[in-house]
Amino acid sequence: MSKRHPDIAHSITIRAEYANEVGMLGNITSAISSSGGDIGAIDIVSTRPNIIIRDITINARDTHHIEDIINTISSINGVSIVNISDQVFLRHLGGKIEMQSKTPIKTRNDMSIVYTPGVARISNAIKQQPESVWNLTSKGNTVAVVTDGSAVLGLGDIGASASLPVMEGKAQLLKELANIDAWPIAINSKDPEEIINTVKLISPGFGGINLEDISSPRCFYIEERLQKELDIPVFHDDQHGTAVVVLAGLLNSTKVVNKKIKNLKVVIAGVGAAGISTTKLLINSGIKDIVGVDQEGIINSSSNYSNNPNWEWFAKHTNPRDLSGNLDEAMKGADVFIGLSAPDVISTKHLKSMSENPIVFAMANPEPEIWPEEALQYVTVMATGRSDYPNQVNNALCFPGMFRGVLNARAKEINNEMKIAAAHAIADCVPEDHISSEYIIPSIFDKNVTRKVAREVAKSARSTGVARKKSKLDLNSYKA
Amino acid sequence: MSKRHPDIAHSITIRAEYANEVGMLGNITSAISSSGGDIGAIDIVSTRPNIIIRDITINARDTHHIEDIINTISSINGVSIVNISDQVFLRHLGGKIEMQSKTPIKTRNDMSIVYTPGVARISNAIKQQPESVWNLTSKGNTVAVVTDGSAVLGLGDIGASASLPVMEGKAQLLKELANIDAWPIAINSKDPEEIINTVKLISPGFGGINLEDISSPRCFYIEERLQKELDIPVFHDDQHGTAVVVLAGLLNSTKVVNKKIKNLKVVIAGVGAAGISTTKLLINSGIKDIVGVDQEGIINSSSNYSNNPNWEWFAKHTNPRDLSGNLDEAMKGADVFIGLSAPDVISTKHLKSMSENPIVFAMANPEPEIWPEEALQYVTVMATGRSDYPNQVNNALCFPGMFRGVLNARAKEINNEMKIAAAHAIADCVPEDHISSEYIIPSIFDKNVTRKVAREVAKSARSTGVARKKSKLDLNSYKA
Repeated sequence: MSKRHPDIAHSITIRAEYANEVGMLGNITSAISSSGGDIGAIDIVSTRPNIIIRDITINARDTHHIEDIINTISSINGVSIVNISDQVFLRHLGGKIEMQSKTPIKTRNDMSIVYTPGVARISNAIKQQPESVWNLTSKGNTVAVVTDGSAVLGLGDIGASASLPVMEGKAQLLKELANIDAWPIAINSKDPEEIINTVKLISPGFGGINLEDISSPRCFYIEERLQKELDIPVFHDDQHGTAVVVLAGLLNSTKVVNKKIKNLKVVIAGVGAAGISTTKLLINSGIKDIVGVDQEGIINSSSNYSNNPNWEWFAKHTNPRDLSGNLDEAMKGADVFIGLSAPDVISTKHLKSMSENPIVFAMANPEPEIWPEEALQYVTVMATGRSDYPNQVNNALCFPGMFRGVLNARAKEINNEMKIAAAHAIADCVPEDHISSEYIIPSIFDKNVTRKVAREVAKSARSTGVARKKSKLDLNSYKA
Repeated sequence: MSKRHPDIAHSITIRAEYANEVGMLGNITSAISSSGGDIGAIDIVSTRPNIIIRDITINARDTHHIEDIINTISSINGVSIVNISDQVFLRHLGGKIEMQSKTPIKTRNDMSIVYTPGVARISNAIKQQPESVWNLTSKGNTVAVVTDGSAVLGLGDIGASASLPVMEGKAQLLKELANIDAWPIAINSKDPEEIINTVKLISPGFGGINLEDISSPRCFYIEERLQKELDIPVFHDDQHGTAVVVLAGLLNSTKVVNKKIKNLKVVIAGVGAAGISTTKLLINSGIKDIVGVDQEGIINSSSNYSNNPNWEWFAKHTNPRDLSGNLDEAMKGADVFIGLSAPDVISTKHLKSMSENPIVFAMANPEPEIWPEEALQYVTVMATGRSDYPNQVNNALCFPGMFRGVLNARAKEINNEMKIAAAHAIADCVPEDHISSEYIIPSIFDKNVTRKVAREVAKSARSTGVARKKSKLDLNSYKA
């Protein structure tokens, strides 16, 4: 069951020319409506005697729907389409990011200061005092958004070039939400060793590495190696961003259902990058009973996962009641369902078999494991990855503040304590007396979120000994 | 003989507190002047009864001179220095460049367009039509400024981190002069194969590669391999930037001395990266008689350079009169001296032995092979690398327009024709009837230069078949 509504991501503006007669516009708009298009602005472009040209902006459901609508309009007698423009494509023309000089170079004096001969003094200073690179260059506020394009959004392995628009978008979010200067580095290789080596070699100019859209299980190994071998934080957002926000949501959900986090029975559907990372963070937060389910059924200690070391780890550290079977078995008596899998994998039957006051995070994207409309009468707390329902689990709640925090502290790494601190900071952005079934997760446009996450992450970096900047957090470096 | 004058690259502001008595400011300023400091602005910061605090800005010659001046002031009776600030360091605090989002992300609609779900349509489009990455991402206007920090300015092998301020300055110049978005990539390796591999792997996001401050002879090999294996232009500015501007200067110099370029006898002092590249470009421009001199003397065919393939090439392709010996021999009867070597390597004796109307480009930095004051009575055209004499040979005349041109044409490489086209474009920026001994090279602040170089480079890219964008040059993409 597709619940896709027309949205801005499929918005076209059709320039239509037709005889300026009563009823024509009505013909057009009703044709659009009956084909399911959502009409936005209608503007007059120009008129000639008896002829009118209008721009009609229409949201569609998907690209096929866009074609349907165009065909519908062009088949109306007397209407000809002069031009079609597509908002998403227009906003991407020429790319979404640019480099900006912080000070103008208008005179020879400016050049002598920012370039030769003045710059030689700065290079010398860094040569003498290597740590000063954090103060005297852009390193201290710069993050590389690194991908190999192997697992981009839901599109799969589309390669380095095709992943660039996503990386640019990520860089934009880092700037907008946390005033961080990020630059996309799309690596033209799928070989983990090559990726690791490349990132290490280009690391001098960056204060942090955001790994993005790298397929599982390679992503685990790449991140682990890089974090071990680099002295700047490395963060694979697809794993930990999700894990942190799920934990944040759970922290507040337990208040709604009045359960203790350490007593929760949790089912994780989808034991990939995000599922495994979430499991690790939940275990680190005290949860003891986690059961993972993938397409092959419940991950358990009697099965052989020798071809997948991550599942071997998973089998060893989860499923304390040693369940086996499929999702049906796992869901019986569970307090929490965390879906990081595929559309429609659970049904109301599963929800009914859960314990009292079930918590369901159905985060398959764009279509959840179960739609809120179906689930709501059986669950107490419902969250999805979607923006059109309450409680959106969105990585953007975590990564901007996480990177702001590590840069402010000049952290060498991101450890579990820092991730847990970030989760608590996000959870705390919902005031205690506002927490409810429909409000366990703050909005990504809540300016407090990034600031709080940054502060708590930096604090945790200092208390766990991974911060290089021991002084108090420089709040000036965060522009709200 | 050092001719260093106080300059803005060594400018400090001293905050001095002293008794507000007649004559005190005079004591301070005459102490500064007698120690050779150049006094700029003097401001009152605050006054208390009998006490005054002033900011005095002073240009010094070098860092030792800065210390001298500070010591001189602090030794004046009744004066205490409250604070010292350094303009060059202040301008570098926090780095000189940042990433900028081209469009704001203020609403959920904005996010849906530039990030998920809208961005998936763009990634899909690039996956379907790989060439569209040039239109739909920032690639088409983005250049990587790549270094290994092995030959930074005159500082030598200072490493990747310490080279970052120079790379940031270069990125600023590319933006200011040619509206190009450049990002520094400082590579933590000196191994040519590792550098080559790294640049290849990160190339998908870039429309061009500016190699910078990589030591000779590694720079030749790295550039050659990269240009062969990548489908975007690779340009080692230290080699070709100098070569192009030298050729431009020579083109106009020959008009001053009324000689034909192909008949010139040219001496190149300093057979390193810039010397070899300049020689190649001059040969490609029709010059037949070039004699190279290095510390070991004249490069000639009877010597053995088996340890240096570049000198082997050089011996084979230059020195048609088969000269041997040292600079004294080389200079006899030469029309042109091109110095890319070291301070004071030539004397007036050498100049007197040259042919009629000698042309001398003494570009050792910061102190030339011979100072203009000494040379001028013996030469007709004199150029240096310095901004404080006429005819500055400055790479910034070439690289911004070169990259603007290749990006506009989506060139796959930079060939000799394009370099020669750039040299002619630069030379042509000096109007024919303005060309004189003191005006053979335009100013880097002449806005025409970048524009003309870009246009001629793009034209040449098309005529030599390396342009991917066949349509007419998009002048809108160049913002003056």
